[in-house]
Amino acid sequence: MSSDFPSPLADPTPKSPVILAAYKARAAAADLAPLPRSAKDDALLAMADALEVRTKEIVEANAEDVARARAAGTAESIVDRLTLTPERVRAIAADVRDVVALPDPVGEVVRGFTLPNGIDLRQVRVPLGVVGIIYEARPNVTVDAAALCLKSGNAVLLRGSSSAYASNQALVTVLRDAVGGSGLPADAVQLVPGESRESVRELMRARGMVDVLIPRGGASLIRTVVEESTVPVIETGTGNCHVYVDAQADLDMAVDILVNSKAQRPSVCNAAETLLVHRDIAARFLPRALDALAEAGVTVHADERVAAVAEQCGTKATVVPATLEDWETEYLSYDIAAAVVDDLDAAVGHIRLWSSGHTEAIVTSSQAAARRFTQLVDSTTVAVNASTRFTDGGQFGFGAEIGISTQKLHARGPMGLPELTSTKYVVTGDGHVR
Amino acid sequence: MSSDFPSPLADPTPKSPVILAAYKARAAAADLAPLPRSAKDDALLAMADALEVRTKEIVEANAEDVARARAAGTAESIVDRLTLTPERVRAIAADVRDVVALPDPVGEVVRGFTLPNGIDLRQVRVPLGVVGIIYEARPNVTVDAAALCLKSGNAVLLRGSSSAYASNQALVTVLRDAVGGSGLPADAVQLVPGESRESVRELMRARGMVDVLIPRGGASLIRTVVEESTVPVIETGTGNCHVYVDAQADLDMAVDILVNSKAQRPSVCNAAETLLVHRDIAARFLPRALDALAEAGVTVHADERVAAVAEQCGTKATVVPATLEDWETEYLSYDIAAAVVDDLDAAVGHIRLWSSGHTEAIVTSSQAAARRFTQLVDSTTVAVNASTRFTDGGQFGFGAEIGISTQKLHARGPMGLPELTSTKYVVTGDGHVR
Repeated sequence: MSSDFPSPLADPTPKSPVILAAYKARAAAADLAPLPRSAKDDALLAMADALEVRTKEIVEANAEDVARARAAGTAESIVDRLTLTPERVRAIAADVRDVVALPDPVGEVVRGFTLPNGIDLRQVRVPLGVVGIIYEARPNVTVDAAALCLKSGNAVLLRGSSSAYASNQALVTVLRDAVGGSGLPADAVQLVPGESRESVRELMRARGMVDVLIPRGGASLIRTVVEESTVPVIETGTGNCHVYVDAQADLDMAVDILVNSKAQRPSVCNAAETLLVHRDIAARFLPRALDALAEAGVTVHADERVAAVAEQCGTKATVVPATLEDWETEYLSYDIAAAVVDDLDAAVGHIRLWSSGHTEAIVTSSQAAARRFTQLVDSTTVAVNASTRFTDGGQFGFGAEIGISTQKLHARGPMGLPELTSTKYVVTGDGHVR
Repeated sequence: MSSDFPSPLADPTPKSPVILAAYKARAAAADLAPLPRSAKDDALLAMADALEVRTKEIVEANAEDVARARAAGTAESIVDRLTLTPERVRAIAADVRDVVALPDPVGEVVRGFTLPNGIDLRQVRVPLGVVGIIYEARPNVTVDAAALCLKSGNAVLLRGSSSAYASNQALVTVLRDAVGGSGLPADAVQLVPGESRESVRELMRARGMVDVLIPRGGASLIRTVVEESTVPVIETGTGNCHVYVDAQADLDMAVDILVNSKAQRPSVCNAAETLLVHRDIAARFLPRALDALAEAGVTVHADERVAAVAEQCGTKATVVPATLEDWETEYLSYDIAAAVVDDLDAAVGHIRLWSSGHTEAIVTSSQAAARRFTQLVDSTTVAVNASTRFTDGGQFGFGAEIGISTQKLHARGPMGLPELTSTKYVVTGDGHVR
């Protein structure tokens, strides 16, 4: 592109490696934006192929990270998340091919009208531009995020955990070679240079160069990004999810949904953390629920009314007294807080006060109760007679997920490809003036 | 709503008036969210009626602000914006009635599917919750913002200029009486207490209590909010808009669009600030364009090539040399920067470098040029053979506008009622578990 005007890249002021990476990402994003789906899909297929062909160098680099983590005494569960095996790399490549199969959101006409004066107005999906992802020690996120951003026409700046730096460098090298080899700008996929916290800080202050930051990881990482970033942020992930069992509920269904919501995979954000039970059904439901939770290995943090029923029925469950803190805790473990509430509105009041706004489920056979709960609960997802565990891009049929937004702006709930886009208006006239 | 759990309102820690207002707004927002359209429309009609009935007290309060502004030597154009007459109050009331006529965005099913496992998934529009508006000395914004927020089910915290404090207090008193009188919570409409900058700062840090802040006003106000707020912000307004006249263009049309874009109302964000002309057409187009700009009273800040044509043709226009600063200036006055570019891609390069991303227009009779410009220019609005002045909620048929977003997240371009909403997912099953 020729221009008579100076480029910021020609600006002689010295720039940090992070800011230079952001400039290169902007340039790549401008090239990606008008590309048709086929060009992007070709690059994605090249990425998947390259991951399989170059598995050895990826696994070797990962072995360095794993050795370092073990030497530092890292918990085995975190080492497991960090570890890449040839099978895992193959699975990651398969995920990239799944993204190829998804429709391209770019170019979709979201709304269109002819205005009274004859102007044609179209609101069209366009890429966001440069997306920054800040995440913890899961190298698969590196590839997932790169694939989803590329498919949606965005350049991505990846800032993974320093504990996965060697793995991420190897993965990004492979991805960039594949992207460049298929004729797209390699700078569409970049690892943020440097392992220091300062590089994260620079990324968070790169307003105007980075269009959005998506932090993925623990609550403290997300809080830091939300509070310190001048780049717009999409807040993800914290899930203090509730299951409310209404006065009229199928008890078998309620037990199934409760146990599934809590214990099918307790370490994830859509697992339930609090059980609320209508007082009219507490004496009948809780003995069965407590036994089922005990069988699933769940400890119950009970309010006085739950504790009273537990004592009366002599449950085999481990029941400990709940403190105020339990109501706001995201355990991510085999623990659940439990309370008896006077009615549906009291359940809603509890949820409003303590929920992180992720997912709340009601089990009820009453249409009126389902309707009221759905209207009053203000969370990304309200489930009626279904497990909280369904709040997930894959489950929702989005094909892939860049995260689950728990904020209200831009995207709320599981984010797929359309949530990685913005829109622009195209106004077409025949010389129209006001 | 009964609850066995403590409310933050019962928390004995002393809270500032701003935070207390935010708490009350949250409670009001929870009550507004499930309301049907008819209840909200009744309140809006009561607001419009009350503004007309109580015009006298509003105009009297406004007179205090006007007298204070005059005594402080405020520019007459700003005093004019501040002034409320009985006619202006009637016009404001009429605007509120226009909002009544608009459809309610809340409850709209944005997407819906039945998943393979039989779960019904619906993505439904819901209010954002609590919206904060920070704006300058235009009291009509107080009523506009309150009406749009109420219609979309949101509580609003209004933080106007301290120079309009008496006017805003009178207006908000009238609005709150009307809202309360029609059975809705009066706290849905609140003026942020206090005239100090500290109250703005508290509003900007009220994350978790305020769902979004929308600053409306000058560039420095917007920059401050964007940089200091931990509450998510929608950036509005700055418009360094471009008109590009392509090699193949109808010259009459190009002159009309240029003059309309620049001079029909130069003080607004969708007015053009820079003219770019393809070199192949410069010698034919510029003499006519310069004369037409001269007639409209516009000073031209010209690059060397424009200046050369101006000298050659002996235009009556005032032509001064452009500096680098001119390319990034939002004049908001009878001034325009002008440059000759080598081709369409050079025009796009100039726009990418200098534009604020608001609105860019191309005048061309070439379909290929229109298509390429539309694809490559990344602004809220791209106009083909139409004035930049059409980027406006009213012109777009949205019926009303809370501002024009120049960011990519959540909303981009003119924001109407749907842009004041979020969504939630409703998952309905028959006992579905994973």
